Amino acid sequence: MKVRLTLSLLALGATLALPASAQFAKPEDAIKYRKNALFVMGQHFSRLGAMAQGRVPYDAKVAADNAAVLDVVSHLPWAAFGEGTDKGDTKAKPEIWKEPAKFKEATDKLHTEVGKLVAAAKTGKADDLKAAFSGAAGACKNCHDNFRAQ
Amino acid sequence: MKVRLTLSLLALGATLALPASAQFAKPEDAIKYRKNALFVMGQHFSRLGAMAQGRVPYDAKVAADNAAVLDVVSHLPWAAFGEGTDKGDTKAKPEIWKEPAKFKEATDKLHTEVGKLVAAAKTGKADDLKAAFSGAAGACKNCHDNFRAQ
Repeated sequence: MKVRLTLSLLALGATLALPASAQFAKPEDAIKYRKNALFVMGQHFSRLGAMAQGRVPYDAKVAADNAAVLDVVSHLPWAAFGEGTDKGDTKAKPEIWKEPAKFKEATDKLHTEVGKLVAAAKTGKADDLKAAFSGAAGACKNCHDNFRAQ
Repeated sequence: MKVRLTLSLLALGATLALPASAQFAKPEDAIKYRKNALFVMGQHFSRLGAMAQGRVPYDAKVAADNAAVLDVVSHLPWAAFGEGTDKGDTKAKPEIWKEPAKFKEATDKLHTEVGKLVAAAKTGKADDLKAAFSGAAGACKNCHDNFRAQ
């Protein structure tokens, strides 16, 4: 039993062999990772949006909880747009790799706006959330318009 | 231009209309969310594993960064195993819904072990990471063995 478990963990380890510097073993993994992280991010963003736009009642704890997740997850997708990840099952536009400075500017803007949204969600005031939401939504939209095929 | 942007944001909002209590609009969304969150979780866990198992050199910052992500993301998937999400594009076994106490015990165990791993990753000592990793890997494996079809 112990031997089987050890072997299973070794087998698990073998499938997970990645150098820490090269974060993804294959371009497909990077593409899957960024899509998955963006979907999770979108779900938590949408929960804040529903409250900010008055479609569901404001709940300070739900706002703070979703903001705490967004604060971490919103930083994840971008490292997965490395060289060689422009082809495959992706809607990412070539502009990401052709105009990296513009792409970085867009993600920096997102981090700034999400930072404001996270701070606003932590005040416990619905009006703060409402005020900060549109800036973050605009940063999402900017990147989707410029760097993602429809 | 301003009208178009406003309409676009309203359209975005409409697709994101979710009550804060019911976190997912459709069972498919919950299934996609938990699979996506688990994949992101697995990627960060694997980076810690690669260092813990000596397959890549230990890097205290990489360890701490991945642990910080894992600390948040490891809490996300479980709320997406609600009623009605047992059917569809999922390998989740019926035992999740038939034996909810056992499933909760398994996820509680994961949180305990991930907590130890996160603490270990923050000490800056490779030996601490090594010592904590197998417990967390065992908690992953336990849940996969009992609650996920191969």
